[in-house]
Amino acid sequence: MNILAIGDVVGSIGCRFLRAHLPSLKKLKGIDLVIANGENSADGNGLTPVSVQFLFDSGVDVITAGNHSFRRKESYELYDSCEYLLRPANFPSGAPGKGFCVVDMGRTQVGVINLMGTVYMDGLDSPFDEADRILAKGVPPITLIDFHAEATGEKRSFGYYMDGRVSAVFGTHTHVQTADDCILPKGTGYLSDLGMTGPIQSVLGVQPELVIEKMRTKMPVRFALAEGDCKMDCALFHIDDKTGNTLSVERIQIA
Amino acid sequence: MNILAIGDVVGSIGCRFLRAHLPSLKKLKGIDLVIANGENSADGNGLTPVSVQFLFDSGVDVITAGNHSFRRKESYELYDSCEYLLRPANFPSGAPGKGFCVVDMGRTQVGVINLMGTVYMDGLDSPFDEADRILAKGVPPITLIDFHAEATGEKRSFGYYMDGRVSAVFGTHTHVQTADDCILPKGTGYLSDLGMTGPIQSVLGVQPELVIEKMRTKMPVRFALAEGDCKMDCALFHIDDKTGNTLSVERIQIA
Amino acid sequence: MNILAIGDVVGSIGCRFLRAHLPSLKKLKGIDLVIANGENSADGNGLTPVSVQFLFDSGVDVITAGNHSFRRKESYELYDSCEYLLRPANFPSGAPGKGFCVVDMGRTQVGVINLMGTVYMDGLDSPFDEADRILAKGVPPITLIDFHAEATGEKRSFGYYMDGRVSAVFGTHTHVQTADDCILPKGTGYLSDLGMTGPIQSVLGVQPELVIEKMRTKMPVRFALAEGDCKMDCALFHIDDKTGNTLSVERIQIA
Amino acid sequence: MNILAIGDVVGSIGCRFLRAHLPSLKKLKGIDLVIANGENSADGNGLTPVSVQFLFDSGVDVITAGNHSFRRKESYELYDSCEYLLRPANFPSGAPGKGFCVVDMGRTQVGVINLMGTVYMDGLDSPFDEADRILAKGVPPITLIDFHAEATGEKRSFGYYMDGRVSAVFGTHTHVQTADDCILPKGTGYLSDLGMTGPIQSVLGVQPELVIEKMRTKMPVRFALAEGDCKMDCALFHIDDKTGNTLSVERIQIA
Ligand SMILES: [Fe+2]
Ligand SMILES: [Fe+2]
Ligand SMILES: [Fe+2]
Ligand SMILES: [Fe+2]
Ligand SMILES: [Fe+2]
Ligand SMILES: [Fe+2]
Ligand SMILES: [Fe+2]
Ligand SMILES: [Fe+2]
Repeated sequence: MNILAIGDVVGSIGCRFLRAHLPSLKKLKGIDLVIANGENSADGNGLTPVSVQFLFDSGVDVITAGNHSFRRKESYELYDSCEYLLRPANFPSGAPGKGFCVVDMGRTQVGVINLMGTVYMDGLDSPFDEADRILAKGVPPITLIDFHAEATGEKRSFGYYMDGRVSAVFGTHTHVQTADDCILPKGTGYLSDLGMTGPIQSVLGVQPELVIEKMRTKMPVRFALAEGDCKMDCALFHIDDKTGNTLSVERIQIA
Repeated sequence: MNILAIGDVVGSIGCRFLRAHLPSLKKLKGIDLVIANGENSADGNGLTPVSVQFLFDSGVDVITAGNHSFRRKESYELYDSCEYLLRPANFPSGAPGKGFCVVDMGRTQVGVINLMGTVYMDGLDSPFDEADRILAKGVPPITLIDFHAEATGEKRSFGYYMDGRVSAVFGTHTHVQTADDCILPKGTGYLSDLGMTGPIQSVLGVQPELVIEKMRTKMPVRFALAEGDCKMDCALFHIDDKTGNTLSVERIQIA
Repeated sequence: MNILAIGDVVGSIGCRFLRAHLPSLKKLKGIDLVIANGENSADGNGLTPVSVQFLFDSGVDVITAGNHSFRRKESYELYDSCEYLLRPANFPSGAPGKGFCVVDMGRTQVGVINLMGTVYMDGLDSPFDEADRILAKGVPPITLIDFHAEATGEKRSFGYYMDGRVSAVFGTHTHVQTADDCILPKGTGYLSDLGMTGPIQSVLGVQPELVIEKMRTKMPVRFALAEGDCKMDCALFHIDDKTGNTLSVERIQIA
Repeated sequence: MNILAIGDVVGSIGCRFLRAHLPSLKKLKGIDLVIANGENSADGNGLTPVSVQFLFDSGVDVITAGNHSFRRKESYELYDSCEYLLRPANFPSGAPGKGFCVVDMGRTQVGVINLMGTVYMDGLDSPFDEADRILAKGVPPITLIDFHAEATGEKRSFGYYMDGRVSAVFGTHTHVQTADDCILPKGTGYLSDLGMTGPIQSVLGVQPELVIEKMRTKMPVRFALAEGDCKMDCALFHIDDKTGNTLSVERIQIA
């Protein structure tokens, strides 16, 4: 089975670029399922019913989120009502939504888990323990995890912790694709960060001069998305239907 | 001119791997100058006179450092006496050593600057201002910066801030190579992180099970370097001798 | 019932000062039970069987800890074997020890809970949720909480969260006593931080010039405890035996 | 000379309470000069021309700020035009305003410096170095510093660093008054935090249930100021006109 995971889609500009390029990529690579991180898919950050619907209509099957999951009030209901929209599973139990879903693909089922790291981020309950709890309740042989986190040390150690227990672990949040794609010793596909879907000449999607101003002056700066040519950072996990192991990881940057 | 920049060399195992592979890479690619981040080159972290000499003897021309610059007392004198060993320039003025050097290559000179980010790291003076101060005093047309930092937002905005003002900006510290190598609009070569030189099956060089234990228990864990097959993450900047601009960036992972 | 809570006891110098002054304070104030934070009671930080025994022998009934709970390997067994030595209850379940105990005072029982904050500290599971879990299992009508935390916002909001549910919430960790002692609207006694037991002319117990050097140079500095005159920061909670409410909070600084 | 320093004034409710009580306190204590931290004096955080004018009209002579200095665009000009409105001196040089002023009291002059810490806060240049630079340019024998910071270790070490060099160092930012008022060995008056001027039943001025919700759910919560009875936390420094040393520090909580 071929599963594509797409890095944080930024704003309507990123959504439109995804829509323009995902269908042909799916055909070209024979992709069976698409997961995309949508935590920044709304203009102005977070996600909205409009941006979520746009991504689903563009060929995304499961949307994951992260630290920006709840930036938009209008999305709260959606987390409860929409089966294939996830937020990190280790958010407190009072938060809307859930962090695990199963997609029925006919002969097989695919599990998707969303978790968030805690190093240099808002303190949530341990993603290691939460992953244990979810797996203890039972997940399909083919299950992938979007681990939304900052620190490479936390990401890679989480990958090793899951090695042999899920099909693949990929990171999101830094908006920069890493080049450490690999298959871990016990068969789990791994990549520290998928990267970003949005404007190339940008700082994580934002106009560089605005971030520079913020960094230099330490004063409040209203961020605006960059424009111009876009790219879509993603990774294709080719997974063995029987064992659930990853057979190959292909990093892809569509520009 | 071809300048190779090598990501954090971890321990004696990483130093030996570098020595085994750097000479042939230099011949193969016609490399004129080699910069390597050595902040973790000593076993047990930091750097020592022995690890520094080993790297120089192995073909490294300039050694940069980072947050682990001063982990080893025996290295303090070296920072003052050794012209081509740098620590981040934005350390307080009382710290040993300096953050800028010029290598005389005969017909041309090459400047190397080492700076450290401040987001999610110990608070140093602004690397943006410090870069301005160094450039105001004058640097060679060919000058490269090792920006040792954690956050991709700080790294990329610093790259844009330096665009057109230096030949290249490459990041270190996360020990994971990024795949956003590019030439910025005004001619500066850029890569968010070079990655690491050390054991492949590891979490930033350390045995995965030890980092997992630390993450799961939150208890003190003594870290030990992993063993087994190594890799050397690096990037080759092909620079125009006249303009000082980068003509191409090639990411390399020797394994 | 009169319960005395003593702020972080620092080193053997702090332990000795406590021993010299606690007995007379107990008599003077008619104190029934003494809780002391011992996370720094060993010279060189953490706690050891020797420092723990010294505190118990000096009249302390329950010892709590914090982020330094596990600095000393020789203390690990003690956390499991000693009923009245606590570490924060929201440490991962794999950690030695427990975060709740009940002291049998004859006609009444007194519960003591130790929890740790997560703002600006190592990320543990939510202390709010953990407190709920402990209370759900049942605690005596007279129960006090040592909330070891940094940020005043987290401390005060936790106090309000517990208001009317436990007898008292007092903070530790900053080593500086606060002056916001009060009885919250529903009867819970509260103080953001008890302060420290140790040398007066110090920065949290450490020689000021060493901390200044660390702050100014950002280089590694080996900390050593200050010497000279000491003080013992503490607070006396006068609690209604029947309701478990706090009737008065008295801040005390013995010097 | 008697100088009163007032902790962070929160919102119009805090401003009104200050206006109601400052005049009588000034008379009662024979206060010559009043410094107040105004970084939260506007409803909705930050400060505005209206809140600044209100404080000046109420008897405040110098207003200091902190991390919220630039939350309100409408205040930017004021920082440049108003001599007695300060923001931390170690903000980058591009920021509006200045961090040092001198008040002419006729026979004597009084210097006021505003600085911000860097531990657990946005990374500014070193306040230790910035203080050195300001003192090197010359300050009056009577000079006080508002050190707006979070960590007690940074605050106390800064106090010792300034001991004997300025008249007094008092902290702000945590909104909780500390009880470590003292005169340091070389004559500088010191208090880690002045506390807050605003509603008593609150978490740093905010309604407790809102902060609890934020802490428990990790979701965005719009903060609103608490109402009800207020207090004014402050400290009175009695300073020797000739030596500039502090003769006594009196903590005051007006409720
Ligand atoms: Fe994102
Ligand atoms: Fe994110
Ligand atoms: Fe580093
Ligand atoms: Fe490193
Ligand atoms: Fe402590
Ligand atoms: Fe502590
Ligand atoms: Fe404030
Ligand atoms: Fe503040």
